[in-house]
Amino acid sequence: MVSPELLRRYPFFSSLNDEQLAALAMVADEKNYPKGALLVKENQPANKLILLLEGDVDLVYSGGEEGSVVNALVGSIAPGEMLGVSSIIEPYIYISSARANTPVRVVELDGPAVRALMQVDKTMGYVLMRNVAAAVLERLKYTQVELAAARA
Amino acid sequence: MVSPELLRRYPFFSSLNDEQLAALAMVADEKNYPKGALLVKENQPANKLILLLEGDVDLVYSGGEEGSVVNALVGSIAPGEMLGVSSIIEPYIYISSARANTPVRVVELDGPAVRALMQVDKTMGYVLMRNVAAAVLERLKYTQVELAAARA
Repeated sequence: MVSPELLRRYPFFSSLNDEQLAALAMVADEKNYPKGALLVKENQPANKLILLLEGDVDLVYSGGEEGSVVNALVGSIAPGEMLGVSSIIEPYIYISSARANTPVRVVELDGPAVRALMQVDKTMGYVLMRNVAAAVLERLKYTQVELAAARA
Repeated sequence: MVSPELLRRYPFFSSLNDEQLAALAMVADEKNYPKGALLVKENQPANKLILLLEGDVDLVYSGGEEGSVVNALVGSIAPGEMLGVSSIIEPYIYISSARANTPVRVVELDGPAVRALMQVDKTMGYVLMRNVAAAVLERLKYTQVELAAARA
């Protein structure tokens, strides 16, 4: 587990109360990955919700071909941002891969445990869903801008 | 207002109870727009959450230039799907424009009223946020695929 105080520092978790932060901290672990590691893999079951503490992460997409090497950059994640958000959004399948661009330090939360907590505590569910929806919308906005530029 | 039974038929609203559907129906209206109408406008305050009943809608993006004509197709909406989802996701600004490709029939829900209802009834807030997050993630997935193809 991690300290609830660690989570509290980040905007994604800042609207939660002490009890809610403690519950999330119990299903979270801090981890380190080397440069080049794949933190999450496209089309795989989404079981980890990840807070990036240090380092840079690229979101890459294979183009959908079976077994193809990931190749198209479709986004990037900066420290303080979340990745693996598909772990708490149906159908719980990662839509892209996340590759460490540098050595990274992260907090990994157990996706099924977070889903269960949100189901039991609907207020926590509302707050986290509101935050995750805002994060995905922001990423959609960025991706639309990139798509419009690529097609211009 | 519209009939709560009308809303109940659509997946976006199907997990809500009678009281919640009745509350949403009270802040909703059915409307028709001609082909070519702009249902929502990029960068404008997002005050309408829209369920498309009939017709086809394109999501278009200007490329971000001040006063530029909308020009890049970044998505499309089919009957039964929601648009204007930015109306219930912070910062409540539309990220693209929605243009009717055919005559369309829609249900328009008052965005600020829906936000207020979700704030008061956190269970409704959780359900709608869960559904809207899934809708935005699906659109992000589609847009990433298009971006990867455009860059290939």
